[in-house]
Parts: sequence; C-alpha cells; structure tokens
Amino acid sequence: MAKPIHSMIRVLDEEKSIAFYGAAFGMMVKDRLDFENFTLVYLVGSDTTFELELTVNKGREEPYDLGDGYGHLAFAVDDLEAAHAACGAAGYAPRDIVEFKPDGNLLAKFFFIADPDGYQIEVLQAGGRYG
Amino acid sequence: MAKPIHSMIRVLDEEKSIAFYGAAFGMMVKDRLDFENFTLVYLVGSDTTFELELTVNKGREEPYDLGDGYGHLAFAVDDLEAAHAACGAAGYAPRDIVEFKPDGNLLAKFFFIADPDGYQIEVLQAGGRYG
Repeated sequence: MAKPIHSMIRVLDEEKSIAFYGAAFGMMVKDRLDFENFTLVYLVGSDTTFELELTVNKGREEPYDLGDGYGHLAFAVDDLEAAHAACGAAGYAPRDIVEFKPDGNLLAKFFFIADPDGYQIEVLQAGGRYG
Repeated sequence: MAKPIHSMIRVLDEEKSIAFYGAAFGMMVKDRLDFENFTLVYLVGSDTTFELELTVNKGREEPYDLGDGYGHLAFAVDDLEAAHAACGAAGYAPRDIVEFKPDGNLLAKFFFIADPDGYQIEVLQAGGRYG
C-alpha cells in the first residue's frame, strides 16, 4: 500500500495559520512537534485522516516564494454558501463562488481563498466527483 | 464538514507523471477530464479517497517554478525498504532512507523522491504518528 497521509507547506506565522485553517475549515491541531530550528504542526479536517503539515522555520521572516507549480489543497463542504459566508465573517477574503459548466452541465461549484501565506485553497460543494 | 479531498500540482508531461505515480506508489487514474486548454487527471492511492489532481496546461513547455514554500506530498507504506527498492527498480532516483531520531527515539523513517517535475514526495514507514 501507499497511502497519501499529508501535504506539507512552509508557513511564516504558526498562530495565523492555525487560526485560518480552524476558522475557515474547522481543522484542529492533532500534533505539534517542536525542534530547535523548526516546528511541525499537524492539522486534521473531518471525515479523513489526511493531514496538513505546517512547517514553521524559526527566524524565517521573508515570505516564501510560492512559484507557479503547486496549485492548491481542496476541501469539500456540505454547504458551499455557508462556508463562503463563514470565511467572510471570520475576516478572510474568499473569492466569488463559481459554477464550472464546461459543456453546459455543472461539473463543480467552488470558490478559492488564500491562506495567510498566500497558498490557494479550493472549497468545493460536495457532490458529483468531488467529495 | 470540510473534508480535504485533493492536492493539485501543475505538471508538464501527463504520461510521465502518471507513469511515475503508478510505478512508485501504485496510484491509478480515477478520472481524466479534457478541456480545450488544459487536462485534469485525478490519481488515487490506497486506503483513502484523497486524490492527487494533475493539471496539464496544453502548450506549456517551460518548467514550472516550484518556489520554496510548498513542501511535499507524503505517503505511508508498509515496507519502506521494499518501496525504496521498487522506486529504484522503476528507474527513479530515491534519496537514501533516513531515520529521524530527534531525542534518541525513532520518530520517523523515510526517504524523499522527486517526481518528473521536481515536486518532492516523502515516503514514510507506516507506524507511530504516520499512517
């Protein structure tokens, strides 16, 4: 077996990231491992054991270069409008909800939101092939 | 609920990426959605519904800039040595297996391997907090 278990991103501010993923997606801190030069924080969402691993390099102040290769982490939610409203109410800036209908049929309904370091998050209405 | 359902990376060569994730981790193509300017490929591993979404932008030839923010996707495997050998036998170049013992106790045993676009993949021995 080869089971995908986590995705790792480097972040500047541990508290801001934990607050964002908690408020926006209900993610909880499952583990926090503190070492001399860096801290690892493992966040979990619902209905899966898949984790988001945050690496916080101590002393790092320069924003990370996000490049143009990595795309996003995606979440499925039961109520997209409620999730969108909750992100806004929490003080974040979700982009508009989009319906993707490449051939006239609805394939996906989603919005994007950036985390505190600028990583893109896709939030999809659960259903069809998503979620 | 907010369930993590996929991670998206942009890749240059669909066939090379599918071959890599298949040979190294047994991932299978669950869906392939072809549009005018891009193709989406959804890969699944074992024991989870979490997917790796590949975006192939048609006509793109310039390698993607991977930056220094995004870290890696991690897999847990039952037999790390066998997974390492399989990667090598398939013609890829896994880095050496490392034991991470920050306080003398084994926290993680893993190796890294780069995919065809250079994205880092961490392969961990299942057990403890991983997998």
